[in-house]
Amino acid sequence: MAVIAIVGAGMMGSALALPFLAAGHEVRLVGTPLDREIVEALRHSQPHPKLRAPLPAEVRSYFDSELERALDGADAIALGVSSAGVRWAGEVLSPFLARTPRLLSMVSKGLAWQDEHLEVLPDVLARALPETMAGALAPVGVAGPCIAGELLRQVPTSVVFTGRSTQACEAWANLARGPFYYVHVEPDVVGAEACAALKNAFAMGVGFGAGVHEARGGSGGSVAYHNYESAVFAQAILEMQRMVELIGGNPQTAVGLPGTGDLTVTCNGGRTGRFGKWLGLGLPLAEAIAKMEGATLECLEVLRELDAALSHYDRSGRTRPTELPLLRHLTDVALRAAPVAMPFERFGRA
Amino acid sequence: MAVIAIVGAGMMGSALALPFLAAGHEVRLVGTPLDREIVEALRHSQPHPKLRAPLPAEVRSYFDSELERALDGADAIALGVSSAGVRWAGEVLSPFLARTPRLLSMVSKGLAWQDEHLEVLPDVLARALPETMAGALAPVGVAGPCIAGELLRQVPTSVVFTGRSTQACEAWANLARGPFYYVHVEPDVVGAEACAALKNAFAMGVGFGAGVHEARGGSGGSVAYHNYESAVFAQAILEMQRMVELIGGNPQTAVGLPGTGDLTVTCNGGRTGRFGKWLGLGLPLAEAIAKMEGATLECLEVLRELDAALSHYDRSGRTRPTELPLLRHLTDVALRAAPVAMPFERFGRA
Repeated sequence: MAVIAIVGAGMMGSALALPFLAAGHEVRLVGTPLDREIVEALRHSQPHPKLRAPLPAEVRSYFDSELERALDGADAIALGVSSAGVRWAGEVLSPFLARTPRLLSMVSKGLAWQDEHLEVLPDVLARALPETMAGALAPVGVAGPCIAGELLRQVPTSVVFTGRSTQACEAWANLARGPFYYVHVEPDVVGAEACAALKNAFAMGVGFGAGVHEARGGSGGSVAYHNYESAVFAQAILEMQRMVELIGGNPQTAVGLPGTGDLTVTCNGGRTGRFGKWLGLGLPLAEAIAKMEGATLECLEVLRELDAALSHYDRSGRTRPTELPLLRHLTDVALRAAPVAMPFERFGRA
Repeated sequence: MAVIAIVGAGMMGSALALPFLAAGHEVRLVGTPLDREIVEALRHSQPHPKLRAPLPAEVRSYFDSELERALDGADAIALGVSSAGVRWAGEVLSPFLARTPRLLSMVSKGLAWQDEHLEVLPDVLARALPETMAGALAPVGVAGPCIAGELLRQVPTSVVFTGRSTQACEAWANLARGPFYYVHVEPDVVGAEACAALKNAFAMGVGFGAGVHEARGGSGGSVAYHNYESAVFAQAILEMQRMVELIGGNPQTAVGLPGTGDLTVTCNGGRTGRFGKWLGLGLPLAEAIAKMEGATLECLEVLRELDAALSHYDRSGRTRPTELPLLRHLTDVALRAAPVAMPFERFGRA
């Protein structure tokens, strides 16, 4: 039995408690300063306010002010923070990690355009950490299709653990694997993490279909706008492969759980698809954002980074302006309020 | 303007009239002996009995007994028959084609295990045709995500045309391309046609998820059994790639419209998914088949051929018994009434 501290009590961080509990570990869930209301609810045995369901009673919850106590004796620390919280977490955890290096993992998804390249989050985190964390204890990222609310209900879930250290990935996998949580170790951290971020951008585009359909007077069902959505989906995977290649990963990684798997789950269960639907319905960008009532829109965050990257790639000749037509269209829609009309005629292999 | 004869007045054959009409061609729709009721309805300006919607008035419909008249002056013939009807169509059309070779295409999907290899349908059809059809007029297949009822409603649809002759593919593409029908020419006929058949088998497996979820008391929504379904989806694409490689195609073809695109559409809109759901709910195989009320179950047809192929591959050492765990599981469930329990622990790259 190990002691696992999860830092970040949002939906995914909290749901991550389930596989560790099932594997027989002690789980301590620590809220960030933004999670105080959640921890308050959990302390009073109320349902998790975002997951709208109770956590198992064995999960011990801590406020951010209790971080030191929560980390005391913890063998491994999992970060359940948003991409914006990764640098914060690195700084807050550094003093503890410098004293006692421990296994570190993260469920955050994102890409950061920095120093003229796109950086994956485990690398962003690694730079924020003390040097003693380097090598075998390099941060491990989680990719693949996982809706938090389903993990909480113990729906069979398959994910990949990925990082610069295969040894650290294997150590985490051995802690986490269990009856409903299937973990595959993926050495291609750049490819897997890039897909985890890219899928949010592309899921927005697949989501346009439901909106355009409804705007044309259609309703859901087996005959709807699936031809449109599926063509966007296929193009999305092709462009994920190209982006992964540009960032320095293996394009084949986009074919498995981190790409096709995660894009499928995000289109079926995520808020990104709902946001895309509002745009497809014809709502102006600002109104579509307002409709999401403050929910984090990872698709906009990642499209901003990708837009910066594409401008640079084009200028330096790494990409041709005819490449990646779907991704370019999505940046135009999400960042420059272009109409959603999908450029199917430009889709294809490139 | 060209004259297009479509032979087979089922759902896909009939819907195929739409892009050709939109491109300004004359369309003649000829029923097979199994389509007499459909042609009867169309002659009386009634809705298409299977599509449950009217065809455009410009479509001229013909009974099978009127085939000769329908083909008179036709520049191109599209087969809208089921995989079982391909050999029949080849024999019936041969006398006409021997006299005047014409462009020939087909929307049928399938794989035939024969002479110790899996054959794609355009090749099955080519062997049933007179020699004058060889070369530039080799049959063209259609793959990619296309629900017939959506094509009929002019939902934007992206497909690939594929065949042994790129010239014939391009000629068909030029006839069919239009405002809502986007055609890409795919030279890898083995890969594209294999995916078109394989997706039915794999969609059945994705469909298990909804059934298992319901059997556990769940209902639809954004939190359901999407983690399970998406993991099966990702594994399906990996195994499609491996099967395409074994049959002699390019694994990358499974990544675009013929693979990820068509599997997505089939999971969202097809009867194969519904059949999988019945099995996931725990219905015995025979009862699940009965529930489908006589609908053609392409998944069972293709799984039978794949089962024969896998036995042979294993014996000859082309495959290891640990490869393709999802596909093997699906053959066990569909052909040997094995329980649906998904072998997630055996999934992975292989």
